[in-house]
Amino acid sequence: MKILHTADWHIGKKLAGFELLADQEAVFEHLVAVAKKEQVDAIIIAGDLYDRAMPSEAATAVVNRMLLRLNRELGYPLLVVSGNHDSAVRLNTGRDWYQSTQLYLNTRLDQAFSPVTLGDTQFFLLPYFEPVMARQYFDDDSLTNIAKAMVPVIAKMQTMFAADKKHVLVGHFFAAGSEHSDSETRVNVGGLDAVAVSDLTPFDYVALGHLHNRHALKAEKIQYSGALLKYSVSEVAQAKGVYILDTQTMTRKFMALAPKYEVQHLTDRFAHLADPDYYQSLDREAYTAITLTDTQVIPNVMASLRAIFPRVISLDRAHGVRLAKTPQVQAAKLGPLPLLADFYQVTTGTALTAQQKTWAKQALAASQQEV
Amino acid sequence: MKILHTADWHIGKKLAGFELLADQEAVFEHLVAVAKKEQVDAIIIAGDLYDRAMPSEAATAVVNRMLLRLNRELGYPLLVVSGNHDSAVRLNTGRDWYQSTQLYLNTRLDQAFSPVTLGDTQFFLLPYFEPVMARQYFDDDSLTNIAKAMVPVIAKMQTMFAADKKHVLVGHFFAAGSEHSDSETRVNVGGLDAVAVSDLTPFDYVALGHLHNRHALKAEKIQYSGALLKYSVSEVAQAKGVYILDTQTMTRKFMALAPKYEVQHLTDRFAHLADPDYYQSLDREAYTAITLTDTQVIPNVMASLRAIFPRVISLDRAHGVRLAKTPQVQAAKLGPLPLLADFYQVTTGTALTAQQKTWAKQALAASQQEV
Repeated sequence: MKILHTADWHIGKKLAGFELLADQEAVFEHLVAVAKKEQVDAIIIAGDLYDRAMPSEAATAVVNRMLLRLNRELGYPLLVVSGNHDSAVRLNTGRDWYQSTQLYLNTRLDQAFSPVTLGDTQFFLLPYFEPVMARQYFDDDSLTNIAKAMVPVIAKMQTMFAADKKHVLVGHFFAAGSEHSDSETRVNVGGLDAVAVSDLTPFDYVALGHLHNRHALKAEKIQYSGALLKYSVSEVAQAKGVYILDTQTMTRKFMALAPKYEVQHLTDRFAHLADPDYYQSLDREAYTAITLTDTQVIPNVMASLRAIFPRVISLDRAHGVRLAKTPQVQAAKLGPLPLLADFYQVTTGTALTAQQKTWAKQALAASQQEV
Repeated sequence: MKILHTADWHIGKKLAGFELLADQEAVFEHLVAVAKKEQVDAIIIAGDLYDRAMPSEAATAVVNRMLLRLNRELGYPLLVVSGNHDSAVRLNTGRDWYQSTQLYLNTRLDQAFSPVTLGDTQFFLLPYFEPVMARQYFDDDSLTNIAKAMVPVIAKMQTMFAADKKHVLVGHFFAAGSEHSDSETRVNVGGLDAVAVSDLTPFDYVALGHLHNRHALKAEKIQYSGALLKYSVSEVAQAKGVYILDTQTMTRKFMALAPKYEVQHLTDRFAHLADPDYYQSLDREAYTAITLTDTQVIPNVMASLRAIFPRVISLDRAHGVRLAKTPQVQAAKLGPLPLLADFYQVTTGTALTAQQKTWAKQALAASQQEV
């Protein structure tokens, strides 16, 4: 059997204020094309379908369309768990009807103990859960973190193993040894909540979501698929895509998915970036983080860069900014009008006109009367 | 065939700050009991399942449980439309799977033209819609309000009428001649958006939601079921419940549903309401609106009333309050300390002690230094 493994769609996520819904719909079409080309038998979505527990109507409509497309239009069985970014309660809507077309969706811990059997494999769909849920379910107060909670979870799953089947765990958690990137929530990604890779050995394969880097874990049979898109600058170098898992051999291959717009990080002098001979050789449509190596003040720097790179997502300096003529100590000693004139000069590159000076004086006088 | 007709659940609604989820779940159990006792063949829910487009997780869980109970556990076919309080997009989640168990849910205008046939009757499920949706659907800019839009909507439905079936419209709109109560949204409940009763004659019966008073319309074959509970003081006198419709005769009977707590409006003197011999004869657990006939200031009046009636939802005066000794004009002439002393006397019934007066003087002096 061939299974497509994806996770961390984060539908509705914005990147530095830029709406990504159109990007997410575009890359989803590439995912569909891969599923068709590879003739997969089912699709795993390992959590974080949504970016927020309270998704917008637009994000809700997109996720609904995607599930409808994959499951009802294309007929793929789906193996889905909720992640920490999803509202388990909201995502659960419709769950009991979805199974009529082999859309298997788990959002609660107790649901994870009814494995789904497809072909040669039993799939255990374990949603993201809080330790308190395991304490309640097992009536065991000692389960104070996910690492501890996973021990009885896995033990219980093992009692359901069919001897003649392979056993695959689908989950959304932090497995020990993983590295992580900026776009994951820091909450609960720490040593105490890391699940030990050694505890996962009962499974023939573990298909995970949560970490956005598919190389986050060095364990042959335990894999993060990575996110659908690059959701932070720290992921610039990470190719995004899906795994195609062969359950016969429990081996996988990675299929990259091309994004509508790339994410890139440029570190350079402003003059170089603003040089048409140079910037025309770059991917100007990409979501672009810029680190300037200049140290002087550059008037209208953001507006100038956005005119060249319409999707600037961050701007910083490699070596700070040197304010040679007006250090803060000196600025505090100037009166309001010289300070304003100086600021205008620095930011626009020209001096105040006589008329502007008159207006500035009047405005300052009026504001002082109000006090 | 026997059809239970309900509407306007408004799950998640609060009454003057009081959470009603437990009340809604309680009355829902009575609804289930009626459905069983009457052995109904299907259930109509004519819109406003939710109170808000962005329902809480708790409200979402309750609606999901209710639909699961009626449709999957008890096996009733459900005929559901979204109302103006529902988010059509969010409520639509799962819709294409629901039909596998005869849960028919429409949230978009275009879906209304695929009637559902059960037994001897065709049901046309028309969700709440905005005129703009009709303009787009019919490509007709003249459909500037719901009244105009309903003409082509009904004409199109008529082309789908099966000659050997009865025809029932399920809708969520304001039909002409209706009266309305405080808990309905005023938006679009006006003359321009009233659908003419005469336009609805092609149907054998029209089962509506939107208005919370089941007596809102005087038309034998066009009925509002009314809301699930009394959601405002103006509905005190309205028995709430469901209709049981017989599709053979197109006649109905009303079945009242007892609420967990009643809503009542008491108009009386404070001393009478505070008299144990009297108030012990009243329903103290009800959500209680109180109108006092007294005119004098009553110290701690709300706290005193809440001690007797724990669910006070409003408090007003029949004849206003007479501030005999300290009218506002006179109060303005007093200094801060006499004013404070007077206020303390009026609200607590006792004078400031010497120590309290000293503290008050110090506090007033300190506050004046700050200015």
